[in-house]
Amino acid sequence: MNTRALILFGHGARDARWAAPFKRLQQIVQQQLPDVTVTLAFLELMPPQLPELVEQLEEGGHTEATIVPVFFGQGGHVLRDLPLIIEKLRQDHAEMTIKVAGAVGEDADVLNAVATYCVASLARQ
Amino acid sequence: MNTRALILFGHGARDARWAAPFKRLQQIVQQQLPDVTVTLAFLELMPPQLPELVEQLEEGGHTEATIVPVFFGQGGHVLRDLPLIIEKLRQDHAEMTIKVAGAVGEDADVLNAVATYCVASLARQ
Repeated sequence: MNTRALILFGHGARDARWAAPFKRLQQIVQQQLPDVTVTLAFLELMPPQLPELVEQLEEGGHTEATIVPVFFGQGGHVLRDLPLIIEKLRQDHAEMTIKVAGAVGEDADVLNAVATYCVASLARQ
Repeated sequence: MNTRALILFGHGARDARWAAPFKRLQQIVQQQLPDVTVTLAFLELMPPQLPELVEQLEEGGHTEATIVPVFFGQGGHVLRDLPLIIEKLRQDHAEMTIKVAGAVGEDADVLNAVATYCVASLARQ
């Protein structure tokens, strides 16, 4: 039974198609981390949201959860909303270790991959 | 004088810090495409928006603009709002060729880079 969880945290959207790349991302990461429970959570507009997910993870025997904000930019959602959610999660789940990574858009390799795609877009059209 | 433009199109946010990775992305792409005008545009909450930017690009002698949606997911903003904006742009700028790429989150190499970051996040914490 896994005791560690990795939560890929996105914004969420009304249109269910929006979640498609997040689901692919979850599959890729899960394949690379067979001993970790890799899940998705959203800030709003689509389930699950962090409180219900972390509740389920704790009930399932997880003692550690790392949250990765899958956002390009760190604005109000990552810098203000997320810390408030995390503070509440830590109060409600004192037995669990809850960690938070930087937003994926802050990573140089991610930005370089996006840049390569943008450059190639010009030739493809 | 450049006649081609590449427009990196993001959502926008109230918090100015949100734009930081987009500006870094613009710099990286501009370095790789010295003969193309590489710009940012946003759907909402921060300037410039597409209509004013494309107007400026046309006045500056550009005859072609390729728009890359810098979104992970293709939801209502990319699948519904953006096509309406593009249709209007093409009506208002009939002399310009306006092209649209797929969202960056649809690219396998981008997703793999994000996945690598997520996996590494677990070890870093």
